[in-house]
Amino acid sequence: MKTRNDLLKLDALDPLAPLRDLFDLPEGVIYLDGNSLGARPNSALARAGQVIAAEWGHDLIRSWNTAGWFDLPKRLGNRLAPLIGAVEGEVVVTDTTSVNLFKALAAAVQVSTNSGRRVIVTERENFPTDIYMAQGLARWLDDGYQVKLVDSPAQLAASIDADTAVVMLTHVNYRTGRLHDMQAITAHAHAQGALTVWDLAHSAGAVPVDLHGAQADFAVGCTYKYLNGGPGSPAFIWVPARHQAHFSHPLTGWWGHAAPFAMAADFTQVKGIGRALCGTQPIVSLALVESGLEIFEQTSMHAVRQKSLALTDLFIELVEQRCASHPLTLATPRAHAERGSHVSFGHPHGYAVMQALIERGVIGDYREPSLMRFGFTPLYTSYADVWDAVEILRQILDDHAYDTAAARGAVT
Amino acid sequence: MKTRNDLLKLDALDPLAPLRDLFDLPEGVIYLDGNSLGARPNSALARAGQVIAAEWGHDLIRSWNTAGWFDLPKRLGNRLAPLIGAVEGEVVVTDTTSVNLFKALAAAVQVSTNSGRRVIVTERENFPTDIYMAQGLARWLDDGYQVKLVDSPAQLAASIDADTAVVMLTHVNYRTGRLHDMQAITAHAHAQGALTVWDLAHSAGAVPVDLHGAQADFAVGCTYKYLNGGPGSPAFIWVPARHQAHFSHPLTGWWGHAAPFAMAADFTQVKGIGRALCGTQPIVSLALVESGLEIFEQTSMHAVRQKSLALTDLFIELVEQRCASHPLTLATPRAHAERGSHVSFGHPHGYAVMQALIERGVIGDYREPSLMRFGFTPLYTSYADVWDAVEILRQILDDHAYDTAAARGAVT
Repeated sequence: MKTRNDLLKLDALDPLAPLRDLFDLPEGVIYLDGNSLGARPNSALARAGQVIAAEWGHDLIRSWNTAGWFDLPKRLGNRLAPLIGAVEGEVVVTDTTSVNLFKALAAAVQVSTNSGRRVIVTERENFPTDIYMAQGLARWLDDGYQVKLVDSPAQLAASIDADTAVVMLTHVNYRTGRLHDMQAITAHAHAQGALTVWDLAHSAGAVPVDLHGAQADFAVGCTYKYLNGGPGSPAFIWVPARHQAHFSHPLTGWWGHAAPFAMAADFTQVKGIGRALCGTQPIVSLALVESGLEIFEQTSMHAVRQKSLALTDLFIELVEQRCASHPLTLATPRAHAERGSHVSFGHPHGYAVMQALIERGVIGDYREPSLMRFGFTPLYTSYADVWDAVEILRQILDDHAYDTAAARGAVT
Repeated sequence: MKTRNDLLKLDALDPLAPLRDLFDLPEGVIYLDGNSLGARPNSALARAGQVIAAEWGHDLIRSWNTAGWFDLPKRLGNRLAPLIGAVEGEVVVTDTTSVNLFKALAAAVQVSTNSGRRVIVTERENFPTDIYMAQGLARWLDDGYQVKLVDSPAQLAASIDADTAVVMLTHVNYRTGRLHDMQAITAHAHAQGALTVWDLAHSAGAVPVDLHGAQADFAVGCTYKYLNGGPGSPAFIWVPARHQAHFSHPLTGWWGHAAPFAMAADFTQVKGIGRALCGTQPIVSLALVESGLEIFEQTSMHAVRQKSLALTDLFIELVEQRCASHPLTLATPRAHAERGSHVSFGHPHGYAVMQALIERGVIGDYREPSLMRFGFTPLYTSYADVWDAVEILRQILDDHAYDTAAARGAVT
């Protein structure tokens, strides 16, 4: 049996431990929700001050050029690229994940226009906004397109066939933390003549992603989770060089124009990744993304992954040991190859238990139905944090009779 | 002839003069580009500190509820509504002007689906991204829709006919500052059976807008110009109550869902203005919009308009008096009813002259072809500023021989 002292020793040896000092984490909190909103890098406050006081306040309109505001989506995209197996000139940070998904899906289905393929395959358990955006696009294309919802990962391969235009998947499932095999699914989709669109919301900065290695077609993702870009910080979109020449979508705003300041009355797409841009971006929120990205340059996704797996292994092990008498059901795969960086346990009173945890300073979150979700962010979570979180969970479950029928009525 | 002293007297009597102290304006600068990027409200820095340090850093994920992040698009929309003649529950601040225009246009053309109307009427001189977004939508609807570009305001009325689905116009022209008669055009469009979509980028916070009075159908606009929300701050969209029930568009993200946290696999539109939302918003940039909006609550759009017209009248008068020997051509209408809050003068070397002005601290901007654009923001521009700006312009034009053929070669 491990002891808390064993974990303090692991922390002392952890090469990532010093990175915790780069984040502002409140006293008395064990933050296990970085998969929903990443913690604040210390540098974000000074960076905001610079953008607001100096660039906006003092330099005013000139900052579009002198402070590089216009280039920020590309500059940040280039900085993010190595984390997802992309290269320079293939990523921009812009708009929201939903809007970027719309662009990527629109571009992907366009390739299929003449093929007669009319099905977008995704999972029923995909994050809802992804499904909704695909449904929105399909309805408006008005050309027979439909969204097929696959009920389980096991049925996925068989669901991709000669009618499939696009396979749209989230790499790590937001509820269960299950990780797809991007390379295998992409290869299968390609073999069936379909393209792939990957949502990296729960994988960018959490697990190593190799978009080129997997020969993926398009990808989008989020910067406010594991990348610590700040609440609702702009999302990213990846279009590999081989798809850029025919990448087109309906959101043809002036930032995607070949010469935006020529003010021509006709839209001419810019060459390269710039064509994934649309309108003017929220610069303050965008600039803060850099505070999150620069921290990753002090480590590697390999090191992050090693610690992530160690943390999630440890959490599963300790919960199963120390809370064994309670009706907790692991929803996250045990196999490393199938696990992202969060762990979910079902409990009949998951919502009430999570509220009690949060009151005690262990911040995870809750997802219907009955799932308690715990995110492990190797940049700022220690092994001792895992111990302490499980100890508080154990106390809550032992002290409150959440498991009994009587309590069930009381807490619902 | 007016003297600088006369203008100092006007400033002393100006009821809006104290509002200048609410802005951070650098020493030695006369800022006449608030129509492109509004100046920084002093309160924006502290507000950013609160959002970043306290809400994000300390309260973390809880701030989505406790700090009201989820409601921010609606709360800001309600605060903005009175400035544009809208009421509570009709405006959200979200996404970019381009993306919001796409939603509004998509909703508007949908109404025409069964009517056979397939033309979106706009002006060739409209801001390009508006034209591009309409072209992008028309191309993708793939149902015979086309964008008709009208060459001059005089030809507009005759261009709206039985084929017109939507009339999409920017209320104040970004180059010339020409103001459309929203009520008359909307009435004419309705008489022809068409709907209207208004872009208020250069009118919100600059001229009184009465969307309900004009019976307009949809509107979008920008918060980073006259509303001083910060660089690229999120845009707004207005959908009046009478159009909300049938307002639908392809960007069906989870923020527009009736129950986003139910995580259902099918999209059910929320009732009300929430259906204009799509994905998760950039909270830091969004929050700063409030710093700009709250300043308007210390005055009225009537007072703003009075001073705006006085400033632009004065600028035109002084330029024409004091720079009379130079080849300046007024591009902005003299009639008050046709003028927004910026004034543009053409000059054969407009670009070079504007660069010289900026070097001397008079910050306007330049728009192709050959137009120098000067924005007058009554909240922080004084009458003496106008005098000083014209004096510097006069000196530059007198001292440099921009008007001669020889100089033309030298400065191009």
